Amino acid sequence: MKLATLKDRTRDGQLVVVSRDLTRCVSARPIAATLQAALDDWAHVGPRLADLAHDLELGALPSQRFHEHDALSPLPRAYQWADGSAYVNHVALVRRARGAEMPESFWTDPLVYQGGSDTFIGPRDPVRLGSEDWGIDLEAEVAVVTDDVPQGATREQAAAAIRLVMLVNDVSLRNLIPAELAKGFGFFQSKPSSAFSPAAVTPDELGPAWDGGKVRLPLLVSLNGKPFGRADAGVDMTFDFPALIAHAAKTRALGAGSIIGSGTVSNRDADGGPGKPITEGGVGYSCLAELRTVETIRDGQPKTPFLRYGDTVRIEMKDAKGHSIFGAIEQTVSPLVDPAEGEA
Amino acid sequence: MKLATLKDRTRDGQLVVVSRDLTRCVSARPIAATLQAALDDWAHVGPRLADLAHDLELGALPSQRFHEHDALSPLPRAYQWADGSAYVNHVALVRRARGAEMPESFWTDPLVYQGGSDTFIGPRDPVRLGSEDWGIDLEAEVAVVTDDVPQGATREQAAAAIRLVMLVNDVSLRNLIPAELAKGFGFFQSKPSSAFSPAAVTPDELGPAWDGGKVRLPLLVSLNGKPFGRADAGVDMTFDFPALIAHAAKTRALGAGSIIGSGTVSNRDADGGPGKPITEGGVGYSCLAELRTVETIRDGQPKTPFLRYGDTVRIEMKDAKGHSIFGAIEQTVSPLVDPAEGEA
Repeated sequence: MKLATLKDRTRDGQLVVVSRDLTRCVSARPIAATLQAALDDWAHVGPRLADLAHDLELGALPSQRFHEHDALSPLPRAYQWADGSAYVNHVALVRRARGAEMPESFWTDPLVYQGGSDTFIGPRDPVRLGSEDWGIDLEAEVAVVTDDVPQGATREQAAAAIRLVMLVNDVSLRNLIPAELAKGFGFFQSKPSSAFSPAAVTPDELGPAWDGGKVRLPLLVSLNGKPFGRADAGVDMTFDFPALIAHAAKTRALGAGSIIGSGTVSNRDADGGPGKPITEGGVGYSCLAELRTVETIRDGQPKTPFLRYGDTVRIEMKDAKGHSIFGAIEQTVSPLVDPAEGEA
Repeated sequence: MKLATLKDRTRDGQLVVVSRDLTRCVSARPIAATLQAALDDWAHVGPRLADLAHDLELGALPSQRFHEHDALSPLPRAYQWADGSAYVNHVALVRRARGAEMPESFWTDPLVYQGGSDTFIGPRDPVRLGSEDWGIDLEAEVAVVTDDVPQGATREQAAAAIRLVMLVNDVSLRNLIPAELAKGFGFFQSKPSSAFSPAAVTPDELGPAWDGGKVRLPLLVSLNGKPFGRADAGVDMTFDFPALIAHAAKTRALGAGSIIGSGTVSNRDADGGPGKPITEGGVGYSCLAELRTVETIRDGQPKTPFLRYGDTVRIEMKDAKGHSIFGAIEQTVSPLVDPAEGEA
């Protein structure tokens, strides 16, 4: 089952069930008006939405055309957004470029930061930011949405609580990170609003690409229309989603609709070293910081700039037959405008 | 106007308007079913709730008894919980006890961490935690709830967006903090679910104690029935709420219903040094860590233990006439039980 949230001038949008090929959709309003409402009562609502999806696939009910640019993030706002850094290769690389040691424990103890979740951006809406000097970067990731997770959940409980899978652009402001982390309280201004893929899908939609803990498919990233990354989300993921969820739930319950991110997807090169650019036959990168890190290791300094106004990022994932699974996040970095003027 | 959220077996509870003396309440359902719904459309809903509050105060409509233990946190779950550390005296003290330097910039650049907001605890419900070894501490604070705040908001816009004021117990797990902060991504497991006062009140309810940016009244904290703190929330607050909100909104919009916390309220002693315990004529403390810090500075090591199962914390604020403004947070630290068994 694939779900999306259409813009309807409300804060939470309107829940729709989307066809497998992402061309048609049908309102879920008689069952649940919003995705959060569905997640709040998934045991009852989930099966009814699945029936609707079945009928939609059969063409057994009236449907409308689904346009990805009409979608908000599946949860336009959420109560919990916890983002991991599960591809430890990425962390090791970034530290190496800085000349900093990475503690051995990073390979055994998951790194998760608490994100802000009140104002997510739509998958085709501009990323509006007040300054290009902040070092604007994308971070292409996979995320899951959970049901309620009790405090102290086991890995098995965590795995059983995964309801939906989606893609993320975790926008990051690299030039604000060092000063913010030096203060010791983690990210805040350096992690502005994130965006999620048009569709959130149940794990069964991934078929054999879902192994119960991660998605074994390349995450396709392009910048201004050129391929930039195709790292496999199933490779080098040191902590899978059940591990990240259990970590997040160690001292607190997680509410239904919690979003747990993988962190920037990153693969080692075949020779064990840092990944190579796609133009050199590698799988490329899921954020500019990693490419800049590789450039720093190679040449002593980064060459590729961060994003500027007008730059466009696209993030997508395709199944074995080449069909888009979640639809595409495609966003242009734009200056901040008066919110009234900027409204679509 | 005073607002509260009654337990009704739903996730968001039922919004009620509460009388000024906290003895009576009336359902706000015909106007807004939940506090989040009210905040989502405050321009229209706020005045109608104020009319209801006026009629309740006059005894002009049927009302029911208000019991603080029937209340959830005013927002039982929220989309944004950003907690400052505005009483820089507190930060300076804690660092001093660790022998660490505090950067000068801490006096001019606000410290804010991103909290988790999906599962707040009720103000009279137990604080259930899986281990006493985590170093369980309270943090008594003041918080405000905002309307929508645009990215890049000025101090004036931030001040104008403050809708409600309430108290917080920002439960903290001190023994988990050092390892978590050393990882560089800020708090996560060390900041489990927080609790808020039974009532959230509009700033006008505070009369002259609200100066547009902070609450000029002592925050009363007791431990197991004994007075522990009465630091004045209007004293030594280096960054007031408009400053904290503008900081939080620098690179992102804040959604309606965002909660912004002050951080642990802390006053210097009259001689400029660390505050003294109440038993020694001082104003005491709003968390155990600060007392332990003072003990460490004085005696080389802390004497007072962190909270144990069975310990009870009470946090309250009274007006000039001695009436409770927000009702009391009163919570007993308790072992984790199966969520099904633990349900009230």
